[in-house]
Amino acid sequence: MTTRMTTFAIWMKTVQEDMEQALAAHLPSLNEVPARLHEAMRYATLDGGKRVRPLLVFAAGDLFGADAQTLARAGAAVEMIHAYSLVHDDMPCMDDDALRRGKPTVHVKYDEATALLVGDALQAQAFLILSEDVGGDAKRQVAMLRLLAHAAGSVGMCGGQAIDLASVGKALSLPELEQMHRLKTGALLRAAVMLGAWCGKTLTDGEIKALDQYAAAIGLAFQVVDDILDATADSAALGKTAGKDAADNKPTYVSILGLEASKVLAEKLRSDAHRAVEQFGNQAQRLRDLADFVVQRKA
Amino acid sequence: MTTRMTTFAIWMKTVQEDMEQALAAHLPSLNEVPARLHEAMRYATLDGGKRVRPLLVFAAGDLFGADAQTLARAGAAVEMIHAYSLVHDDMPCMDDDALRRGKPTVHVKYDEATALLVGDALQAQAFLILSEDVGGDAKRQVAMLRLLAHAAGSVGMCGGQAIDLASVGKALSLPELEQMHRLKTGALLRAAVMLGAWCGKTLTDGEIKALDQYAAAIGLAFQVVDDILDATADSAALGKTAGKDAADNKPTYVSILGLEASKVLAEKLRSDAHRAVEQFGNQAQRLRDLADFVVQRKA
Repeated sequence: MTTRMTTFAIWMKTVQEDMEQALAAHLPSLNEVPARLHEAMRYATLDGGKRVRPLLVFAAGDLFGADAQTLARAGAAVEMIHAYSLVHDDMPCMDDDALRRGKPTVHVKYDEATALLVGDALQAQAFLILSEDVGGDAKRQVAMLRLLAHAAGSVGMCGGQAIDLASVGKALSLPELEQMHRLKTGALLRAAVMLGAWCGKTLTDGEIKALDQYAAAIGLAFQVVDDILDATADSAALGKTAGKDAADNKPTYVSILGLEASKVLAEKLRSDAHRAVEQFGNQAQRLRDLADFVVQRKA
Repeated sequence: MTTRMTTFAIWMKTVQEDMEQALAAHLPSLNEVPARLHEAMRYATLDGGKRVRPLLVFAAGDLFGADAQTLARAGAAVEMIHAYSLVHDDMPCMDDDALRRGKPTVHVKYDEATALLVGDALQAQAFLILSEDVGGDAKRQVAMLRLLAHAAGSVGMCGGQAIDLASVGKALSLPELEQMHRLKTGALLRAAVMLGAWCGKTLTDGEIKALDQYAAAIGLAFQVVDDILDATADSAALGKTAGKDAADNKPTYVSILGLEASKVLAEKLRSDAHRAVEQFGNQAQRLRDLADFVVQRKA
């Protein structure tokens, strides 16, 4: 166990460092006009976060022998969609948060208009990266673009945000809460898994189904643990304002199920994720490690 | 002349009506969750505007025999990028405008958070439409996605917005003003022309160069005329608040060149646009008509 976790920790660190380089390379340069916008885009994206989505891209890609450069491109695209959503989510008209990844949020560091444009430009940049002319199978490339657009849009991440907005102060049922998170964070986490796998090969229906089940389980686990941490950790550990959900009167797993039942649910989802990728045997070790990481993280 | 303009007017009305149908079909349905977000996306996009970008898509597509359904898809994608940019541009942290196309802006009709999400989701929807699985040449489809992402992003439309923001209250030179508009509105108008042409065939370098010159000329002409109208028309005719640029202390062609010289420039750009597509002969009549329309419009 210790040896495996050490191997995983080394793998994770390597992917995170490679992703930092890939993101830096795939973001517009400071030498390009408009420099201030590009500086703010880099501020919003670089040097921060656990890079959970790129880690999923790489773990799923390893399963099907994808090459590192293709995975880095897909990872950068997904991470830019995630980064843009954080920038917009932190704005005064949304969550109004001043702290993100231990740093001032973009609208605090720059201004609101810049934060709006940073998010807009990062979204376009994500699609630009995925549509780069890199040879290879153009049909699969179109499918990957479609997958990301679907996951990012009104029946994916943006839709989840809209449901989240509408749910403030309301008593959601557990299925309603699940639906919100399936869109808000689940859709992009699923896209990360699928994009990574597609970097390796065109998937069979059976493989898609298994990866879907895996992604659904860790997507929900991720959110349950987020809610547990928001209720139990402090801001310094989280790098963002803790206790926001309760203060904002937002429904969470903890507020609906209680803390202990939430922890039990997180564990159950971890086993679900493991079971979903059983058919892939040892090759899926990184996906299992990531499920453990998502549930056992402290921030 | 009269006969030709009548033919053009009929063509324009037909394309506008077809586009309204295409946009309605390509936007998420009100029956899909989240319904309120989808309603607001439809409010922001349907029933309004001259549809200049889709008109350019169709005019350029006609030149190379593109089929109507493919053009409608490309037109809808470009128009959704344009619609999202208007929603975000009208927000309080940007231009803070309450009126657009004669109707309350999205953040006034709904709320700011919804306006933010409407814009974000419309951008994703544009890329979703262009990445639909419609058979055909996947390599060209990827190139069209790349073209749109480039035109929408930080060295295109968003970059132009950022330069615009930074220019408020500053004395821009004419080349600086041109650079701003080349990005802010020119990039997407160019994308409309190119996407339309690519719907028909893969272009030669000579054809790309000619269309580029045409697009650059009408892109600037469009902005010069916008500035003239902002200084001379009233809000009722424009369907948006007139005189905003002067009130916001924004540099415009009128403020830099004066009204008469701006009118002369608009006419020169119209001839430039005509000359650029001379090689295409009669086939380019719609592109010439559109250049006339852009310069002679009253709103």
